[in-house]
Amino acid sequence: QGTRDHAPAQVALRDRLLSAVVSCFKRHGAAAIDTPALELREMLVGKYGEGSKLIYELQDQGGELLALRYDLTVPFARYLAMNKITNMKRYHVAKVYRRDNPATTRGRYREFYQCDFDIAGQFDPMIPDAECLKIVHEILSDLQLGDFVIKVNDRRILNGVFVVCGVPESKFIPACSTVDKLDKMPWEEVRSEMVGEKGLSPEAADRIGEYVQLHGGLDLIERLLQDPKLSQNKLAKEGLGDMKLLFEYLTLFGITEKISFDLSLARGLDYYTGVIFEAVLLQQDNEHKEELVNVGSVAGGGRYDGLVGMFDPKGRKVPCVGVSIGIERIFSILEQRLEASGEKLRTTETQVLVATPQKHLLAARLKLISELWDAGIKAEMLYKKDPKLLKQLQYCEDTGIPLAAIVGEQELADGVVKLRDVATRQEVRM
Amino acid sequence: QGTRDHAPAQVALRDRLLSAVVSCFKRHGAAAIDTPALELREMLVGKYGEGSKLIYELQDQGGELLALRYDLTVPFARYLAMNKITNMKRYHVAKVYRRDNPATTRGRYREFYQCDFDIAGQFDPMIPDAECLKIVHEILSDLQLGDFVIKVNDRRILNGVFVVCGVPESKFIPACSTVDKLDKMPWEEVRSEMVGEKGLSPEAADRIGEYVQLHGGLDLIERLLQDPKLSQNKLAKEGLGDMKLLFEYLTLFGITEKISFDLSLARGLDYYTGVIFEAVLLQQDNEHKEELVNVGSVAGGGRYDGLVGMFDPKGRKVPCVGVSIGIERIFSILEQRLEASGEKLRTTETQVLVATPQKHLLAARLKLISELWDAGIKAEMLYKKDPKLLKQLQYCEDTGIPLAAIVGEQELADGVVKLRDVATRQEVRM
Repeated sequence: QGTRDHAPAQVALRDRLLSAVVSCFKRHGAAAIDTPALELREMLVGKYGEGSKLIYELQDQGGELLALRYDLTVPFARYLAMNKITNMKRYHVAKVYRRDNPATTRGRYREFYQCDFDIAGQFDPMIPDAECLKIVHEILSDLQLGDFVIKVNDRRILNGVFVVCGVPESKFIPACSTVDKLDKMPWEEVRSEMVGEKGLSPEAADRIGEYVQLHGGLDLIERLLQDPKLSQNKLAKEGLGDMKLLFEYLTLFGITEKISFDLSLARGLDYYTGVIFEAVLLQQDNEHKEELVNVGSVAGGGRYDGLVGMFDPKGRKVPCVGVSIGIERIFSILEQRLEASGEKLRTTETQVLVATPQKHLLAARLKLISELWDAGIKAEMLYKKDPKLLKQLQYCEDTGIPLAAIVGEQELADGVVKLRDVATRQEVRM
Repeated sequence: QGTRDHAPAQVALRDRLLSAVVSCFKRHGAAAIDTPALELREMLVGKYGEGSKLIYELQDQGGELLALRYDLTVPFARYLAMNKITNMKRYHVAKVYRRDNPATTRGRYREFYQCDFDIAGQFDPMIPDAECLKIVHEILSDLQLGDFVIKVNDRRILNGVFVVCGVPESKFIPACSTVDKLDKMPWEEVRSEMVGEKGLSPEAADRIGEYVQLHGGLDLIERLLQDPKLSQNKLAKEGLGDMKLLFEYLTLFGITEKISFDLSLARGLDYYTGVIFEAVLLQQDNEHKEELVNVGSVAGGGRYDGLVGMFDPKGRKVPCVGVSIGIERIFSILEQRLEASGEKLRTTETQVLVATPQKHLLAARLKLISELWDAGIKAEMLYKKDPKLLKQLQYCEDTGIPLAAIVGEQELADGVVKLRDVATRQEVRM
């Protein structure tokens, strides 16, 4: 349940998509690492908030207690700590596992690819963070997925908001996860969840509401930096200062048009400590043609300065920021688009079919195809002793092989091969 | 235990190796499929003989009982049966999982890559089988791993040998697994295991010994076809006839020099039904310089005509033959060789570092690097506001970046960039 086989046409599409993503990661100078799909269970505990109950555990068959990785970020942090690496720009493309309720039409599976790019190291503020947003912008533009917006916020600003609204610290995380639902439900419902389920006071909820419904650009940052309450909170002030710097860098990258500073963005994972972001695709609303509506998140990430320290015996911290591209959702969009277009992707790269027009010529085919393979040419033949020529040419048409190399009795006697262009039916002897 | 992280240099080497293998598979017209790492437990039961106890099982957390795949062959057979595919040439490169005793210096891990190529379908005898051997020959030659031999046998011949030597059918499989040890221990020890542990009669063991110590080429096949006992056994006769045909095709491919018909080859897995083969690397013996000794198996495979039928509700059979390349062992050989050579693999593909020679030029760097990325150029910069030029050039040398694009105050004023060749220190303004 919640997993799937990929048929050749799907692998071909997926490989095309992954190669666009990996090209971008390489363009930004990242090196690849790989870690096992299995991690020690204790390494994954307490890193994912409510997600922890979705971790796949292995049966105790003796030896270590294992689990399947839930994401690529925690294994990366473990890798850095284990190898005492304090400075690294890496990408990692691999499958992760979550015992979630699958929603396969929207591209949500229990086994799915993640494509992560992260920058670890002690650097000047917001320079690596800005690059992560540039990467999201490049990939979503490259893939021509339509209009999108990248929402940006900062955990420090959110925490500052909770403090100045009178939320006790113990309720920051539950409040956070409720705020995060503002993109899916109206404020009234979010408010009643805060007061009802999460036990916040109605006054606190109303005060939070004034902040988290705000979104904008540099102007909003400036306004909040002047906000009489928020500007008094150290964390929020730091976060807002860094957000201003981030917008400065994004302006130099020329991408602020797609960026929205959005105070309702909270993201679910426990480990974020600074900037957080999420890219969503926009589509014309069917009812109100002029409005664009959110049709789903396709990338997300943020800063997690404390995670590596949790794996280091001495708690040494390595600041990190990174982004994860939601390849499965993008894949299901491209798959639907391909289906609608009726285009057929080739699933093999075969250049030539070695064919014979008469019987008793298997030996000639085997000799010729062997020569072609040894010369690095992608070649196939039918696995029959005496196939009909028509069947052989039909195979070319069905699988998109552009050429047929035909050896008949005459060609054998003359020491030549007849090369046929399958589409035009033109033939040359060579 | 028995798993490992791959650092960037290892991923770079592994990707180079995998790409050589995949190139060969594509040269032979295979399409790629992908299946989940998780399979239903019941799908894996009874397919692997003694290997079954090495299957990783997942904990029962509600829902289906799952296990990690043990190889890529059984998932392929399940895929064919589920999708009612009767004809397919596919490759699959992915990780598999075995709770084995790891021997990491010899490249044996609990999580490891398999690279499989298989041909499914009802075809004329030995044509696809010969292609599998050609593929092994191409890959091992391409990778320049030194001398090798591909041992070939047929399960039908082995079963025929057991029959004519008076082994009861219930003891075929245990006898098979003992015969398989002949490459690691002398006949005397194998014989005593047969008689002792496996309960064969001393006479049967002696008769088996006369056959399984034989290896050779076409001459041996001809001799056994005349063997008064073996030629009376239907299965053995079929197997020998096909073996003769196989050698004919391999002669046309020009690769018989590396092929040895070896009656001791048995292979461990239950599902083989016809031709089986295994490629081993040879090295000069340290004591007897003129002799070549087996230093390990690097590829193996065979025909399994019954496996797909085990997954089909109506038991419909799809004949299959395939090969698996032992990438981990090859990887550990190449890794040791690379280490010995002192060569350093680049782990990134960065073409240019964007650098500044004075302070307060971060904006100029961000603007230039953004232009380069947008033009598809692989570019990096240091994540510092004001890095020293020397540090920036040092970074190029450390990571192998060939060019530095330098923008200083003068270049900014002149509207140019200074492009520096890091190795020669030559500079041009452009």
